[in-house]
Amino acid sequence: KRVVCLAGDGIGPEVMQSAKRVLQVVERLYQHKFHLQDELFGGAAIDEAGQPFPARTLAACLASDAVLLGAVGGPRWDQAAERPEKGLLALRKALNVFANVRPVQVDEAAAHLSPLREEIVKGVNFVVVRELTGGIYFSFPKERTAEQATDTLTYTRREIERIVEYAFRLAQSRGRKVTSIDKANVLESSKLWREVAIEVSARYPDVELEHLLVDAAAMELIRRPSRFDVIVTENLFGDILSDEASVLTGSLGMLPSSSHSESGPALYEPIHGSAPDIAGQGKANPVAMLRSVAMMLEQSFGLEAEAQAVENAIAAVLKAGHSTADLGGTETTVSFTDRVVQTME
Amino acid sequence: KRVVCLAGDGIGPEVMQSAKRVLQVVERLYQHKFHLQDELFGGAAIDEAGQPFPARTLAACLASDAVLLGAVGGPRWDQAAERPEKGLLALRKALNVFANVRPVQVDEAAAHLSPLREEIVKGVNFVVVRELTGGIYFSFPKERTAEQATDTLTYTRREIERIVEYAFRLAQSRGRKVTSIDKANVLESSKLWREVAIEVSARYPDVELEHLLVDAAAMELIRRPSRFDVIVTENLFGDILSDEASVLTGSLGMLPSSSHSESGPALYEPIHGSAPDIAGQGKANPVAMLRSVAMMLEQSFGLEAEAQAVENAIAAVLKAGHSTADLGGTETTVSFTDRVVQTME
Ligand SMILES: CC(C)[C@H](C(=O)O)[C@@H](O)C(=O)O
Ligand SMILES: CC(C)[C@H](C(=O)O)[C@@H](O)C(=O)O
Repeated sequence: KRVVCLAGDGIGPEVMQSAKRVLQVVERLYQHKFHLQDELFGGAAIDEAGQPFPARTLAACLASDAVLLGAVGGPRWDQAAERPEKGLLALRKALNVFANVRPVQVDEAAAHLSPLREEIVKGVNFVVVRELTGGIYFSFPKERTAEQATDTLTYTRREIERIVEYAFRLAQSRGRKVTSIDKANVLESSKLWREVAIEVSARYPDVELEHLLVDAAAMELIRRPSRFDVIVTENLFGDILSDEASVLTGSLGMLPSSSHSESGPALYEPIHGSAPDIAGQGKANPVAMLRSVAMMLEQSFGLEAEAQAVENAIAAVLKAGHSTADLGGTETTVSFTDRVVQTME
Repeated sequence: KRVVCLAGDGIGPEVMQSAKRVLQVVERLYQHKFHLQDELFGGAAIDEAGQPFPARTLAACLASDAVLLGAVGGPRWDQAAERPEKGLLALRKALNVFANVRPVQVDEAAAHLSPLREEIVKGVNFVVVRELTGGIYFSFPKERTAEQATDTLTYTRREIERIVEYAFRLAQSRGRKVTSIDKANVLESSKLWREVAIEVSARYPDVELEHLLVDAAAMELIRRPSRFDVIVTENLFGDILSDEASVLTGSLGMLPSSSHSESGPALYEPIHGSAPDIAGQGKANPVAMLRSVAMMLEQSFGLEAEAQAVENAIAAVLKAGHSTADLGGTETTVSFTDRVVQTME
């Protein structure tokens, strides 16, 4: 299995180091061989190669079985001709990973850190499925004059259909409920979105479909988050709502994500950013990255037992009271990873 | 002073009744004369006149000194040719009320109802200034075929400038900090927005300007809401974020809003919806509507003492432990209003 590792910027290289160690343990314990290939990406690639997503990195990703990403960006590159984020958008488009999947689950170890009252976050367990390669991020024309600027938001029936299908299939393996989020009282693209969602739902009679307007959804995520099972929404709404949702859990450092195409390699990354303020200090929580590794083992390689072993080891270490500073603990990125590795062994 | 009253749908007529009673008390106590004129709007107008914003209502609003709005919409009109929301958008555009102002303040009486932990919501006091007549709500082309749908998001420099100016002037009378929210790492319109915000800020050296990406803002509103003073953002982001922000306070039934044009009549309305589930039962909390009245007295008519009297009466009644069911109390819309009226007298 060829895995391209894009460590990226800030704390990216530190958590990527953890990921590699855990993958090596999986190799040893379960007799697998992962070919791990480092490539330049983001600000690091701007520094070394003059652009955030060099052709060599692109070629390696396309030829891989899965891509692991640390984090990109930082104030250092704010004035760059092409910013690190451009590279991220280009990577998503190149891999055609239209389905971004973000599980939102409240860990016992972090529940006290949630800004929400305990009775509201208790038992929260849902997944946000965000459309990742369409909408206003990628539509044309984008126009800019001195006097005005224009963005375009286009969705095709096909684009909506495949992401909604993805959400329904996921819901079948979970709580059998899909919440489709749009702004159908204002946007043409949302009207089409809602129509297609209704059409798709007819093919999944065992899954309940509800519609929510994006403004109402922003409220419901805080008021009654336990009502959600699978949320599906378009690119920009998904950006906003998945970040809002991640705060519920009390630690951004715990949440993984995966992004899937129809057939090519998938992309796995923690939802947290590059956190330049704590970079290089060994403070980063590696859990989000390690859980992204677990998602890769299961979803790209079908290695369920191995994925479960990683998840179980993380849970056991947390349960034993060990955690990094973001959760109030005293572990470093390395010492926390040591404990996960020891537990697995 | 001519005030057009658009009671609208659901609980709209009930809270409008409270507003009128309080305005009559203000007339009597302070020797003013308000000419209150009822007009059809929303679903009620669809039922009576076949459309949500009849020409007669438009003419009355344009000829008024201020417009009070209850609430519009409800499932009954979901299949209408023109839905009630269309009327609301047309009203905003007709009055050219580009600046929607929503104070977000945590009342002691409702703090225990906030889904957020007490230490996080304590002392929260900020204002969301939402651009209300531009952006993706009103830009063209909007296109729809069987296979795809397109919306357009355009902002002109002038549109951005006037709303950002509005926010800076407001900040001068408050905490002297403006948080401008955009998605400048992806959208052309946001890049222009950010440029103009920086230009405008040069004219207000006494006010601090910070920029926040919309996804980060959705997180910060829950993580550290007390960091905000004046938030300014474009129409759709403002729709999402102001609704998210309103949940912090624990009761949507408490929050007023005002919408201002450059010179014509302003529009005042509670932020809550028409709540068809409790309509006609006397359960609606009239506080948001009464506070909208107080905003009108102060902002449209310069009647500061009168506005303060309304605010003080509401605060006193709440402090004495009287509230409607949404706050855990036993008052009805009418009996709560009785108490406010008695306190004022
Ligand atoms: C960096 C940015 C372009 C990106 C996005 O908006 O998609 C980020 O916020 C994310 O959610 O991964
Ligand atoms: C009803 C709808 C069109 C409206 C909006 O999106 O502006 C509402 O959500 C609001 O915020 O007043």
